Amino acid sequence: MYEVEVKVPTDHAAVRARLSDVDADALGTVVQRDTYYDAPHRRFAETDEALRIRRTEAENGDRETHVTYKGPLVDSASKTRREHETGVDDGETMDSILRALGFEPAAVVEKERARFRVGEYTVTLDDVTDVGTFVEVETDAADVDAAREGAFELLETIGLDPDDQIRTSYLGLLLDGADDGARVTADRAPSSGDS
Amino acid sequence: MYEVEVKVPTDHAAVRARLSDVDADALGTVVQRDTYYDAPHRRFAETDEALRIRRTEAENGDRETHVTYKGPLVDSASKTRREHETGVDDGETMDSILRALGFEPAAVVEKERARFRVGEYTVTLDDVTDVGTFVEVETDAADVDAAREGAFELLETIGLDPDDQIRTSYLGLLLDGADDGARVTADRAPSSGDS
Repeated sequence: MYEVEVKVPTDHAAVRARLSDVDADALGTVVQRDTYYDAPHRRFAETDEALRIRRTEAENGDRETHVTYKGPLVDSASKTRREHETGVDDGETMDSILRALGFEPAAVVEKERARFRVGEYTVTLDDVTDVGTFVEVETDAADVDAAREGAFELLETIGLDPDDQIRTSYLGLLLDGADDGARVTADRAPSSGDS
Repeated sequence: MYEVEVKVPTDHAAVRARLSDVDADALGTVVQRDTYYDAPHRRFAETDEALRIRRTEAENGDRETHVTYKGPLVDSASKTRREHETGVDDGETMDSILRALGFEPAAVVEKERARFRVGEYTVTLDDVTDVGTFVEVETDAADVDAAREGAFELLETIGLDPDDQIRTSYLGLLLDGADDGARVTADRAPSSGDS
């Protein structure tokens, strides 16, 4: 199985109206705060790895924290990576463990995500702090080409142009847009996906 | 608050009888399997740190996994360390994350622990695989001297001699006793407590 994902920068209002037209199921909204870490012993920007603590808060106040490792691209055509993720009870303590081991927070990506279900696809309306608003269409599939074709069709159905898609992660976009005075620095930008 | 702990190598049968005499509350038995990791960027044996994944299984089959970082001794008299510990959903995934980051399993300490409550103290009967059987008496207290004195009195009450106490961790004892053919090597032995 592969994760097929297409991301387009766009406003949300028109897309929400189209999603309503196609009777998309609203799956709720969450706020995610992702902290990415630098390693003490290798440069993730060069090794194409990422280490992240993700704090998710749902509309009802439920909170979850996950720690995630993303390895380098195994196959650039399919964007396949090794990824390990598990829930942790206490994100602050996990942060303390990582810092004690020499890992340092490098950047924080914060976003509000509204998810909708349309058939086999998930449509996500992302509002990324200091970056912009985006729509992602994704699905898991054995047949990558067919799944990508379906994602493109769905994008057009909800009024978007597949040619507008971008492949840069939100972390990469945040770091690209960081001013000289910003806390993050561009040479730390891993290319690992952050969705 | 300090954690005051006294550990004595001893058989368990006589201690169990004495615990019954003083109406100790049995708190149940767990099996703990602790995996200690080596770091890719510093030698924990030299820095006096430890990184551990602890898998605990209770008598009723309940399983818990924790990840723990122990820092070097801050104050050798009180055995005070910086310690960070949090529960994780999936120990295998946490192990995969640590390995992907370059941390390698160095030693495994496995033990069965039967806990009893006597007043402010916890009495633990530990059966440590390949190491031996031990009794620990511990409590949390603001007054270390008084708490240690109480622990010594309780040890005597249950038939043990405080002069028999040892300060080496189970990990240290395991590594000290490892034969040449064993998987663990003595130069990896951190002094961090493993209880």
